[in-house]
Amino acid sequence: MKNLLIASTSTVHGESYLDYLLPALRLHFEKCKTILFIPYARPGGISHQEYTDYVAKSFKKIDKEIKGLHEFDNPIEAIKNAEGIFTGGGNTFLLVSQLYSHTIMTTLTEVLKSGTPYLGTSAGSNICGLSMQNTNDMPIVYPPSFKTLGVIPFNINAHYLDPDPSSKHMGETRETRINEFHEFNSIPVLGLREGSWLEVRNYKTTLRGALSARLFKKGEKPKELATGTDLTDLK
Amino acid sequence: MKNLLIASTSTVHGESYLDYLLPALRLHFEKCKTILFIPYARPGGISHQEYTDYVAKSFKKIDKEIKGLHEFDNPIEAIKNAEGIFTGGGNTFLLVSQLYSHTIMTTLTEVLKSGTPYLGTSAGSNICGLSMQNTNDMPIVYPPSFKTLGVIPFNINAHYLDPDPSSKHMGETRETRINEFHEFNSIPVLGLREGSWLEVRNYKTTLRGALSARLFKKGEKPKELATGTDLTDLK
Repeated sequence: MKNLLIASTSTVHGESYLDYLLPALRLHFEKCKTILFIPYARPGGISHQEYTDYVAKSFKKIDKEIKGLHEFDNPIEAIKNAEGIFTGGGNTFLLVSQLYSHTIMTTLTEVLKSGTPYLGTSAGSNICGLSMQNTNDMPIVYPPSFKTLGVIPFNINAHYLDPDPSSKHMGETRETRINEFHEFNSIPVLGLREGSWLEVRNYKTTLRGALSARLFKKGEKPKELATGTDLTDLK
Repeated sequence: MKNLLIASTSTVHGESYLDYLLPALRLHFEKCKTILFIPYARPGGISHQEYTDYVAKSFKKIDKEIKGLHEFDNPIEAIKNAEGIFTGGGNTFLLVSQLYSHTIMTTLTEVLKSGTPYLGTSAGSNICGLSMQNTNDMPIVYPPSFKTLGVIPFNINAHYLDPDPSSKHMGETRETRINEFHEFNSIPVLGLREGSWLEVRNYKTTLRGALSARLFKKGEKPKELATGTDLTDLK
């Protein structure tokens, strides 16, 4: 029994933070008065408190209170007691390092598997997969492992970007990078475009949002999946 | 005493592999008949032999023979005996993992510090810095450490990209990522645009190529450095 909303991005171009998700979040966190926020990914290096304040403003629009995990002396207890949990984006290497150093990876997996409503955006979505190996982030700190929550049986590439045919840049495309991953790993990778999310409700996983997603499996051609696709059997 | 050519990219848009560098490479490897090629980064997942054959074609244009490191039973001896060394691009996580698993990181540092002519492109340039933490690559394998050769006292961001003001993508810009790095690290980072390289000759380091480079230092505003800038004192 799970209750997860795993989004590619917190923000779509031209809108305010989380705005495009608010109608879904109102339902998703229907039974929560207060949501526990995990601010460890620190986008742009802002502090835990700055990040928490920023997030609280958006959640106020749907009458939810936000408490930052950094405010608790015992983060394990805080996670166990949370009515709902949100992990925001930023740097995935930093987020994963912090989850390990606060020894909350296992507890977070347990509460998510037993139904605590969860929202992840960007780095907070990457950690839902089996490993963080399809992040786009820079390795600014060295985590003790790349293994993550594994509350879905595949990996996420957030902010998925199609190749730009007019580009003169010689760096790898996202597709090339994911193909390199599949030379060494067999975990399927779902490229979630900005504006898409996964809804994991009980035992059913569905692609939501306006766009299609791109699925990469080792040794197979990538596939476009229409919004609404049932991904329950993907592994 | 060092003799390094540290390039942002192997290839500039619209040209063949290494073409823009061949005039510099002819001089750089003047005294070498054979160059040892380190193919470990495997761009796009190609095999060591495929990669070596591809590189050999370009070096034939300046009458140099290429031998792949994978062809030797004892890679440590091969590096010690090399007349010149080239490490090609691909995935930096894979390259660094392989350098550690073949226990050649120390030997490679030693020969580079004692003057063996070296060419690095992309991932092969990232490893010249103190750490690989400013790579743009995906963490497709878990290396035992992010520490690299340290033959220059700062880090390289290869394929440096300026922010695109018309972009609607909400992922981090390169500058944002490097600033996040500086929240946790004090190593200067040189953003090398495609077509730029560093020339390290004896104790002098100079920016070469047609373009300026962008220097990031912790707590300072980024600076544009014109080609020809002396970077000997950067650390």
